[in-house]
Parts: sequence; C-alpha cells; structure tokens
Amino acid sequence: MAHDNLKIIPLGGLGEFGMNCMALRWKDDILVIDAGLMFPESELLGVDIVVPDISYLVENRRMVRGIVLTHGHEDHIGGLPWILSELNVPVYGTEFTLAYVEGKLEEHKLLDDTELIEIAPGSKFTIGPFTVEPIRVTHSLVDCVALAIETPVGVVVHTGDFKVDLSPPDGKAFDLHKFAEYGKRGVLALLQDSTNVDRPGYTPSEWSVKPRLDEIFSRTKKKLFFSCFSSSIYRMGIALDLAHQHGRKVAIIGRSMVESSEIAQDLGYINISPGLIINPGQIGDHAPENVMVLISGTQGEPMSALSRAAVDNHKHARISPGDTVLLSSRVIPGNEKSIYRVIDHLCRRDAQVIFDDGASGLIHVSGHASQEEQRLMINLLRPKFFIPVHGDYRHLKKHAELAKSMGVVDAAILIEDGDVLEVNANEARKTGKVTAGRVCIDSGSSADVVADIVIRDRRHLSEDGIVLPILTINKLSGKVERLPELVTRGFVGADPAMLEEARKVVGLTLENSSAEEKADYGVIKEKIRIDLKRYIQKNTSRRPLIMPVILEI
Amino acid sequence: MAHDNLKIIPLGGLGEFGMNCMALRWKDDILVIDAGLMFPESELLGVDIVVPDISYLVENRRMVRGIVLTHGHEDHIGGLPWILSELNVPVYGTEFTLAYVEGKLEEHKLLDDTELIEIAPGSKFTIGPFTVEPIRVTHSLVDCVALAIETPVGVVVHTGDFKVDLSPPDGKAFDLHKFAEYGKRGVLALLQDSTNVDRPGYTPSEWSVKPRLDEIFSRTKKKLFFSCFSSSIYRMGIALDLAHQHGRKVAIIGRSMVESSEIAQDLGYINISPGLIINPGQIGDHAPENVMVLISGTQGEPMSALSRAAVDNHKHARISPGDTVLLSSRVIPGNEKSIYRVIDHLCRRDAQVIFDDGASGLIHVSGHASQEEQRLMINLLRPKFFIPVHGDYRHLKKHAELAKSMGVVDAAILIEDGDVLEVNANEARKTGKVTAGRVCIDSGSSADVVADIVIRDRRHLSEDGIVLPILTINKLSGKVERLPELVTRGFVGADPAMLEEARKVVGLTLENSSAEEKADYGVIKEKIRIDLKRYIQKNTSRRPLIMPVILEI
Repeated sequence: MAHDNLKIIPLGGLGEFGMNCMALRWKDDILVIDAGLMFPESELLGVDIVVPDISYLVENRRMVRGIVLTHGHEDHIGGLPWILSELNVPVYGTEFTLAYVEGKLEEHKLLDDTELIEIAPGSKFTIGPFTVEPIRVTHSLVDCVALAIETPVGVVVHTGDFKVDLSPPDGKAFDLHKFAEYGKRGVLALLQDSTNVDRPGYTPSEWSVKPRLDEIFSRTKKKLFFSCFSSSIYRMGIALDLAHQHGRKVAIIGRSMVESSEIAQDLGYINISPGLIINPGQIGDHAPENVMVLISGTQGEPMSALSRAAVDNHKHARISPGDTVLLSSRVIPGNEKSIYRVIDHLCRRDAQVIFDDGASGLIHVSGHASQEEQRLMINLLRPKFFIPVHGDYRHLKKHAELAKSMGVVDAAILIEDGDVLEVNANEARKTGKVTAGRVCIDSGSSADVVADIVIRDRRHLSEDGIVLPILTINKLSGKVERLPELVTRGFVGADPAMLEEARKVVGLTLENSSAEEKADYGVIKEKIRIDLKRYIQKNTSRRPLIMPVILEI
Repeated sequence: MAHDNLKIIPLGGLGEFGMNCMALRWKDDILVIDAGLMFPESELLGVDIVVPDISYLVENRRMVRGIVLTHGHEDHIGGLPWILSELNVPVYGTEFTLAYVEGKLEEHKLLDDTELIEIAPGSKFTIGPFTVEPIRVTHSLVDCVALAIETPVGVVVHTGDFKVDLSPPDGKAFDLHKFAEYGKRGVLALLQDSTNVDRPGYTPSEWSVKPRLDEIFSRTKKKLFFSCFSSSIYRMGIALDLAHQHGRKVAIIGRSMVESSEIAQDLGYINISPGLIINPGQIGDHAPENVMVLISGTQGEPMSALSRAAVDNHKHARISPGDTVLLSSRVIPGNEKSIYRVIDHLCRRDAQVIFDDGASGLIHVSGHASQEEQRLMINLLRPKFFIPVHGDYRHLKKHAELAKSMGVVDAAILIEDGDVLEVNANEARKTGKVTAGRVCIDSGSSADVVADIVIRDRRHLSEDGIVLPILTINKLSGKVERLPELVTRGFVGADPAMLEEARKVVGLTLENSSAEEKADYGVIKEKIRIDLKRYIQKNTSRRPLIMPVILEI
C-alpha cells in the first residue's frame, strides 16, 4: 500500500484485558491513545505490574507527538510513569483524569517534567496532522471521553471505555448528538470497547444500584463497611448520601480511597455534608449503628485495608460480630480465591457479608456497554471500518461478528497487539507487525525515581538477580516448620552474613503475623516480599526480584 | 463429656472444597467416610495433588476398621492410594465406585494388597460397632450413595454428594422412601453436602441438557468436539446417543475419557451402538459433518487433549475452521484463566466455541442439591443435629443458617477440619482438636510405587531438594531470551555436568514447543516440569520438587 495511509497500531489491550495503548501514525507523526497497565497473572510471581512493550514508540521517539487519555482508570493511565520515563511527551486528558495522573506522576517524581494539557468535551485540539475532538461518554468513572480524530484519510473514532448511561448521577449525559453528527458526516473507522460483548441488552445506569443499597442501609443494625473500587466515584457519592440520610458518620480507610475521595470532592463530583466525615480513630466514639466505614480492598488484595481488617490486623477497621460488610463491586476473574478467602475470614468474625453472588440484588453495575449499546454506537456512527478493541481474542472476534451481522459497516477487522493496520478512504489491510508484548515491572517503593524502573526490570536477572525465600508452613497450625531458606541466583550483594540477617528478617515477619495471616498465602507472601525488599535495598542498594515460595508439609 | 459419646472428626472438606474425609469414632473403633484429594491452588507450585493430613488415623491405626466411599469422584476417592499406603484397611464402595478405585490402585500397584468390598443400596453391612446402610442418591456421577450409620447413640446420616434428580437417565431414582423411613424412626445427626447452598430452587435433572445439546448437534456443520468431565457418565451417554441419531461416528480422545467410557460400558451405564466408535486415527477418513470427538480437558488442564488440540499439537484431534467445540461443563473457580486461554486459542483457529457463559443455554447442570433439595432432605430426615459438610467456611455457615431457619433441627453445628465433635442422644459439643491439614504430593509418574509417596513428600526439601528452571520468554515473539537457568537447593545429585545436561533438556523442550505453547505459560511450565522430572529421576534417582519460573522481559 501507498505511503499515504493511516497506520493503526495497537500496543496493548487487543488480545488481553488491561494495558490499553494504541498508536495512530500518519507519515512521521504518531499520536498515542491511552497508556495503561494490567495486574500480573498468578504465573508471574514477584512482579507488581505489567505494562505494554513500547519499543515501537521508543524506536520512533522523535515522531511521538503526545498521549491522549480517554479516562482515569489504571488500565488506561497506569503505564504513564513508565512510558514518560522513556519518552517525554505531552499528556492530554480531562480535568478529572489529569487529577489522577498528577498524583501518579508526583509519586514517581515526574510531575515537574511533564507537560499536562487539559482537554474538554467539545473543544477540538490539534496534534500534528490530527485534529482531536473529545466527546462526552458515560462509564463507571467520571469525566470520560471518546475521541473523534480527524486524519488526512478520514475520521477515526475511539470510544475509550463507555456505556450509554441516560441518567448519570452527575447529570453529564452521554453525547448522543455529537456521535450522530459525526455519523452523518462520515466515519472512516470505529475502534470500539469490546469488554461486555457477551452481555445481551443494555447495561443499567449507575443510579440503578441506589434502591438496593438503600435497603441494605435500612436493615443494617451495626457497623456498615462499604467497599467499592476507589475510582467508583458515583458509587462513593451514593454511599456518602445514604450514610447521611441514615444517620451514619463516615470514616474513610485505605490510601486509594482517601486520595480518590479528596480529588472527587475538590472537583465537585461528590458533596459531603459538614460533619459527616470522622477520623478512623474516632470510629469507637460512635455507636456502631451510626458508623459507615468506606474501605478499599474489594478484590481481596493481600495488603488492602479490608483484607487486613478481615484477619483482625487493622488498627481502626475492626470487624465485630453482627457488622455488615458490603462489597459493591464485581468479582474480577482470576481474583476469586483472594476474594473468597477474605469473605471466609469475615464470616469467621460473624460479619454479614453481601457481595455480588447473583443473589444479593443489584449492588453493582458494569461500566461497559452491553450488546445493544454497542449496536447503538455503530448505528450512530455508521463507520466504514469497524475495529474491536479492549478484550481477549474471543471478545474481539465476537464483537467483530456482532458488527458484521448488522449490515452497517463495510468490514469488521480483527487486529491484535503489534499488528499494523493500514487504512485509507478505500481499504483497510494488515501490512505487518511491530514489536509488542508485556513488560513486567517490580515497581519498588513509591519513593523510587521512575527513571530506574525500565532499567531495573531489564537488568533484574542479569545484575540484581533473584531471591527466593522458601518457607514451609503447616497449614492448620500456622506453624513454620523450619527456619526459612533463602535461595539466591545472580544476586551480587549476597554475602553469607547479610543473607543470615535476611533470613532473620523473614523470620521476624512470620513471627509478627497472626496464624490467620500465615494461613492466607497471598497475605503472607506479600508481607515477606515487602519486608525483605526493604531490608535488601537498604543493605545492598540492589533490587533483586523477590519471589516467596510456600511449601505446605 | 463421657466416654460414651460418638466422635465426629472431619479431616478434610470442611473449610475447603475437595479432599473430603471424615472419621467416626466410637470408643476404639474408627470408620472413615471418603478419602478425597483436591487440586492445588496456584500458590502451591510444583505440586500435583493435595490430600488430607491423616496423622490422626495413623496415630490410631489399630482402631481404623475401614473406609466407606460414597461415590467415585476424585474429591472422594483420589486420596486413597496415599491413605492406603499408610493404612492397609478394607475399602467399601458400590460397583461403579470400586471400578474407578481399582484402576487407581492398579496404577499405584496397591490393588493386590487391598481388600475391596462391594456394597449396594439397601444392603446393610457392619463395621465394628457401626451398621451401615447405603441409600441410593442421585448426582452427576452414577451409582452414588448416602450412608445411614447406626451407632450406639443413634443414626448418623452422611449424604455424600447428592441432588434430588427425579428422572436420572439410568432410571435409578433417588430413594425418597428410605430417607423418609429413617426420618420416621429418628435421626441423631445429618451431615449434608453444602456445595450449592448459594443457589435457590432446585437443580435441574441430568436429562435437562438434552434438548439444548440436540439443537447444537443439529446446527453443527463440521466436526463436533464434545468435551465434558470424564466422570460425567450421564453426559457422555447423552452425547453418544445424539451422535448416533445425527449420523456422526465417535472418536474418544484423552486417557481419562477412554478409561471412563470403558468402565461405563462394561457396567452397562452407556450403550454404544455397533460401529459407532472409530479410532482417533480414522477421523480423517470421515467427512467432518459425520464425526464427533469426545475429548477430555474442560478445565484447560495444560496437558489435556483439548489444550493440546487448541495449540495444534495433538496428533489426531485437529481443529479446522468451522469446527464446533462444546464444553459441556462448568468453569470451576480458579480455572478461568486456563479455560479462557484454551478458548482464545480455539477462536484463533476459527472454531465455534460453546461454553457455559450464561448465554449458551442449558449445556451443563450441577450435580449438587440446591436450597430446596437441601430443605427437602432435612424435612425427610428431621435430624436432631445438623452438621454441614463440603464447602468453604461461608458455605458451611450459610447452610447451618438455612437449617436453623427451618425450625426442624434442635441445633445446627459448625465444625471445621480437625474439630472433634462429641455427640450423644442429648447433646453435641466440640471438645477438642486433632491434627488436620493439607499434605502436598508430587505424585510422580504412574509407574511409581505409592509407598514412596508419603516419604517423598516429607523429605522433598530435606533430602531431594528443589530445582527451579528459570526461563525468560519474550511474550509475543515467543523467543527465549537466553539459555534457561537452573537454580537448585538441597539437591544432592546436582553435579555440574548433569545440571548442564538438564539445562539442555529444558532447552530441547522449548525448541520442540510451538510459539503458541510458549505463550501459554500453563502449558510450557507443565511440559518443562514433566521432561525435567523424567530426566532427573533417570539420572539421579532423586525426585526434587521442580518449579518452573517464567520471567517475561
């Protein structure tokens, strides 16, 4: 094909959920849409996060004009620190999205060196040969946009994550008219969110959980622990309103929950009545029936506030018999064991646990479009080419079939990470492949300078080596059968005395853990990893990959 | 409490799903119900199976009179080889259950030394002070029984796994009358299956999947790959009938599927029309629309026939575009990633994949009682004491609450593995704890003598050590970034020359694997583990724990 083609090059999120990243290239200009992360599969031990391989962008670094963000979820912005440490380019996002980004860049000491450009629905801006118009969409997060991108060969629309919520709690409606307008004028290609392609019908509005949550508030007699994703701003707002109506003071626990609620309040997305919020330390000063604890940890993350509370290891969040714990969230596939472990622990404390088990009523709604909404968007935009994004291969395939069966699009095209799709006004064709894949990052403490991250990852094995603390635990007694062993490989700082000390550090971590924690491998491994990492970094300035191994004997 | 109490001591399955094992003790006689295994959680690398800690039985070995099996599923019989290698006691089971047990014991060279005693519904037998009557129940497997056990303090009923199937395909109905009779005479304690306590209503009959499966057969144009649990004898029978009706020859692929179908045929549970079965090598001799392949691997097990077919690495099971793959099974929690990986591979081969995604119609039914059936059983038996078995803590708790709320039982009692519950005609009370827990077993090749298993497990770390093959794989290219490393610890046979050779073995395994297999960590780790284990055992007679570690760079 000729040089006068637009190249669409997915670098992440097409063939997996998470780490969304897409490059659009026209001649010598590249625009990047989103820069996400994903959380590692259980096979990848000792790794904190996974980000897309951006070799293609690095090789063409002088062409990259900027990164445009559709919204503030981790799978769309979480890879930014890593990418920005390689490529210093401007980042475009809406007000709320940039508030999340700022926190993240601050933490990695990249904020001062990064140009952040605020965008808003309806306000076009230009990046090289591309004119971008953000269009308001609705999702489980606030201030989300799709992108209509005028290119020399036609308009490309990227939906970002969306659903068609006709009554979003903030009143900022999905912009049906704007999509209709673009559809009338003609759209060359539509890149559309595939996440919920398995669900027939429509996804309910963010409002729709309120009646059921209200019922739960009404019948809860003691403390109510309300847990949701910290980015579920609408949900948080509903919970705060209900707490106020039902005469409960609110303590907010968990770093992500605190930060997120502050941003949402600052930007006017939640209104907190004066006197509603109490410090976590004051929970005991109020009658249980007058307290709600907004707490993070819906996915059973081992170090989260809720997981620690479940094993009675949180200073302020203490579960008493008769308390209610409400998980207003979904069970993300892959997290079942961690989540159910936490629920079992909560049951042992005689808490009433309400979670999305199919029998608890509408306590959570998805943020992604179901089939009818996907069809609605295709009908509004009537694109020539349809390209599914965001999903495992089977979702992309089903989404392509859905679009094809409607008879609206000329072609539905299946591409995966690394494919180069060339498009012009007449045709769309895969013409090659670029390097793509997943890069695992052991992100270190929040004080780390991010510039190290890439290097560290690449040199982990060759320079910093691996340390495997090997423990033998008796499941039921929680007894550690012998002193933990430390197996090391390629770990230069490994002198015998230091290793002996390190073993003692692991021993100490074990000693300071409850029997319940020791029975919960997710928790105990994470504790050991964190403590040992801190000790080794302090004493050797090295950052080996640390992978605790537990053997039950 | 007095010495004249019955002791009920769960050793497995109360606090987890799987490894069901329960001891009943009256003075100096112990009867054991079931001896199951569970499959390891992902945290337990390098381990094949998990079985209950039977220290309590070993310590009281002279009191153990026998093991009575309720049915032939792995979570009820899979621990037998391990237990029998420690305790040579008679094993009681129904005809079909014993057929499974024989194969298992044969494999472990324990068959000649084990006394197997066939039992049948309605025929009482005596073990020490216990008189046991097996009662016909229905489940997803055939020839299953509950046990009514007369003890000196009263009758204890253990349901085993059950549902109330009023039209089982083999016509062997759930014995409502017998349970009613025991209920009339008085039941001291009911130990009841909690598995589906989260499900309201009734579980559908095994028959109920037939209409939907028939539709799928009707509209399938090319080859049909039918996958179900190899123990789903009813399902297998329905599939064979439908194949016959729709003019498809049947090839059976996968060791467990072949063995199970042979047993079912021998015992008259499935009837195969003459000429229906073809050899896997003959698949190509028939038009695709005239072939059904009955294939094992519904859970995405890395070495299963279906997993290998999905990456085009099975000699006979070859997936062509347009073929249909039907998974007539459920997605067991924890297996999502493996299963979805296989489905994605199948989609890449342009197969039509039908699985239990909530939108495929009734292609699978559970074998366990839902709430109304649990209530029905409680109403029939009207036990004094109700004790939930089989489930995580939250299931046991919910099941106890269900029973309590009915106002039929005197008390619902929550016990977990290792608890000692003492029962007499007047009261039931937890009085202590015995050793209980999980033992991890690396079961070795099928040629191993099982007497080794226990010892091997216990000495793994101290004598045979650990070998960790560490690979760095580039996800997308599938390229192995450098020669695999072997980290060893406490592995006595580890001379440098042998290890160098072992590295080459791993290298060879990688060379002989397709890019798709290398991208599928479950598969590649299992292949490496098996090949390396074989090499090391051959060359050193040692059996270190082998735990492949994959790093993506």
